This record gives sequence, C-alpha cells and structure tokens, in this order.
Amino acid sequence: MSDFAADKSHPRYQSLLMRHRLEMAAKAGMLADSALIAHGRGEAYDYLLGEKTIPSAHDATMEALAHLQNANSAVISLNGNTIALAGTELMQLASHLNIPVEVNIFYRTPERMSALLSHLYKIKNDNDLDVEILGENPDAKIPGLEGPRANCCEKGIYDSDVILVPLEDGDRCEALVAMGKTVLVIDLNPLSRSARMGSVTIVDELLRVANNLLTGAMQEIIRTPRPNYDNNQHLQAAIDHITSTLSS
Amino acid sequence: MSDFAADKSHPRYQSLLMRHRLEMAAKAGMLADSALIAHGRGEAYDYLLGEKTIPSAHDATMEALAHLQNANSAVISLNGNTIALAGTELMQLASHLNIPVEVNIFYRTPERMSALLSHLYKIKNDNDLDVEILGENPDAKIPGLEGPRANCCEKGIYDSDVILVPLEDGDRCEALVAMGKTVLVIDLNPLSRSARMGSVTIVDELLRVANNLLTGAMQEIIRTPRPNYDNNQHLQAAIDHITSTLSS
Repeated sequence: MSDFAADKSHPRYQSLLMRHRLEMAAKAGMLADSALIAHGRGEAYDYLLGEKTIPSAHDATMEALAHLQNANSAVISLNGNTIALAGTELMQLASHLNIPVEVNIFYRTPERMSALLSHLYKIKNDNDLDVEILGENPDAKIPGLEGPRANCCEKGIYDSDVILVPLEDGDRCEALVAMGKTVLVIDLNPLSRSARMGSVTIVDELLRVANNLLTGAMQEIIRTPRPNYDNNQHLQAAIDHITSTLSS
Repeated sequence: MSDFAADKSHPRYQSLLMRHRLEMAAKAGMLADSALIAHGRGEAYDYLLGEKTIPSAHDATMEALAHLQNANSAVISLNGNTIALAGTELMQLASHLNIPVEVNIFYRTPERMSALLSHLYKIKNDNDLDVEILGENPDAKIPGLEGPRANCCEKGIYDSDVILVPLEDGDRCEALVAMGKTVLVIDLNPLSRSARMGSVTIVDELLRVANNLLTGAMQEIIRTPRPNYDNNQHLQAAIDHITSTLSS
C-alpha cells in the first residue's frame, strides 16, 4: 500500500485509493481483523466485473434510490468497511435524502464503535452535514440474531421500512428481510447469500454505488419503485457479465 | 478471526484455519500490508472453484512434480503468504525432493526477512528437516526487475532451471520466464498474468497443492515431464469450471 500516490492517471488509482482508505481506517481502529480479507474478496469480483458499473447494476441503483426516496422511514446501515471506503459519500447521501445513518457492526466492541462514531462525527462537521448518527445507544434487537450483533436502534434500523445495507453479512441480511423490510443490498458477489436475499441487490463496488446514488439524489427527481422489478434477473445479468469476462 | 476453533467438522474449518495462520504470521511481522487483501482475492476464486482440487489442477500438480523431480537445480521460492499458509508443508516437500528453498519477497525489509527466516529455521528444527534455506544474503539479481525485488541468491533462484513460485506477482513471474527457467506457478486466479505466463500453472489453493505435491513426492515414483503438456488447456479447464459454478 506504500505504492499509493495522488496520481489519478495511474491505471490502478481507484483500487489503490480504496486500499489507502482501508489502511487509514485500520490504523484508527475502525476495522475487524477480517476486514482486509473481505475487501480482497470484493476486489476479485470487481476485477471479473471489469471494475465498472454494468448497466444492470446502474438500473438496480436507481431502483434502490426510488425505495429510499419513497420510504416512510429509511436508514443507511454502516459498518467498518463501509465507513472506511465511502463514509463521506454515504453521509452526503443521507443528508440529501434527509434520513439517518446507523452504525451496526458484526464484531461489536466499545473501541471499534467509538472509533467509527468519532469518524462519522468528523465527516459531519467537516462537511457541514445535517445527518442523525445512530448506533451509540442500541435499545432494540433484530429478531433471530444472537449476541451483540442483534443490537440496533428502535428509531433507526428497528422501525425502518427501507434499509440500505452495504457489505452486509448473510445472517443479518436474512434477519432484516424476515422483519418485512425492503432490504437494499450492495455486494460485489452476485452469488452471496446477501445478494440472493436482498429486495434490490446492487452488484457493484461501494464507492461507485455511493456516487451514483448521490448523483441521482441531487437530480431532484422523485423516482417510483417498479412493482415488477426482478432482482433475480439483475443478479443473472451480473453473473452473465462475469461469465463473458472469463470467456473472452 | 476470533471465530477460529479446532473443530474440524466446521464447514468453514479449512478457510478459518488459513485465516488463523495468516493472523499469527501478521502478528509475527511476516506479512506486508497487502497480504490479507491478496488472500481475500484468493478466497473469492477458491469459492468459485468449489474449494476443491479440480481434475485439471491435480494433473498440473503432477506435471509440476515431474519437473521438480527431473530438474538439474530446482528451488522453491517462498514469500510471506506462502510461509504463513503452508510453510511447514513446503519445507517438508523441499526435504523430500532434496532441494533448497529461497525467501524472496516483494516488499523486502530487514524486519520481514528476519521474521520469515526465523520462522523457517523453527520449522526446520521442529520437524528435523534437512533443507537449505536461502535468501538471507542475496548475491545476484533477476534481470529486468528494479530495486530490492530483483535480489536473489546465485545458488538458488538465479542458477535454477526449475522454480516453484507459489502466489508470485506477475512482474517477477515474467522475469523468471524470460531467464529461460521452467516456472511452476500456483495461483487461484486463472486469468492472472502469473497464471498466463507460467510454464505449468496450478489453479488451486496453496495448502491443497502443497499436500498433493508432498503425497506425490512420498510415493517414490519418478515422473517424467510431458513434451506436449498444454498449460493453456489447463487454464481453460479452470475457467470452464468457474463458469459452470456461476451458471448452476
């Protein structure tokens, strides 16, 4: 990662920038041990996608935006990798949509929660954003999960009807779907349990998605969720794209 | 990684064991920052391979063994991830084949070299192995590479006619091929530059390959390299397997 430089013309600039953001987050105590391995898995799938937003992913992103715009109570769930990779962009999105974010992590320790919350408050202040940051004092539990990973906030994740969960684990994604929520998933692996469980799954790299959502939200067009939206069809399009990359 | 347990019946036992070995190696200062990300990329490809040795990979492994057994001067090149994941097994293989190992790392620092060499000497002593460990005092350079990553030992990598390079980067693999060596590559990504450059590429997980090579070497059969061996055909078989995983 010592190779990271500010030269945007470097062919691997985007990939090196993401690694640099993770490295900084690791040093700040924001990440679990498994964070870098999970990022590597994502890199492999992104490579197979051609490191770009494919048309089906862009379409899924606009469908997710429609759900966020039409929700009674939407929330963006943030974990360590999400905050490291696209914390600023997702906070800007929350501000534009006027919805809260909630820190919700798999390996919950007071130290990691504190590091993540501090970082979000810094983003909020540095960018002068009006966003409610939840997660510090969980007062509800996600049914079907055990231990600290079930913890959530009533006015955030618990009461939400629409939830954006980037880079979520399969168990929690499944539990949120079982609660009857519309679950918007961002996952580079179209075969993952989260990808298959999601209401709308965006098979794309997190920062590209965050920027696409932000651009869409800033257009001031209120979109409408499609009644006949087919998530499996979008997953199949991603699989087909990967297959064609492998064959060429 | 705190989930690691000695319960071999756990469906993810092998994957958790590998992560545990990497975690221990990271704590011992043996790994570069990018090591865990690289491992994650491998995990993604292994998932697509079904986390097993596919027939074409086993065939490539036996071809690689034939080259190692018939070499004038063979060597096993070891880097941080390789030593962390299968250090003991590769040292046992070197002992059976009566060939040296050479520590050769991309991000070469005195601290990492020292940690890796110490670990190999511990494996050597603990297992009472008769293996020459090279790499501490490089006295030659791989042509075409710049900086510390060109460093190697004359009696090891430099003079070898056959070299096993698990988890090697593309640049160095290409430079070794340009030296006229038979380069035996272990890489889970059949599309990587190393995979495509190799003389014999084994698309399989390192520890499974090390164990397969060790089993083969212990059979006391001297194999012969096939004159018409087709590396591209073996890469295509791996790609076809991944494609069928994605389609099913």
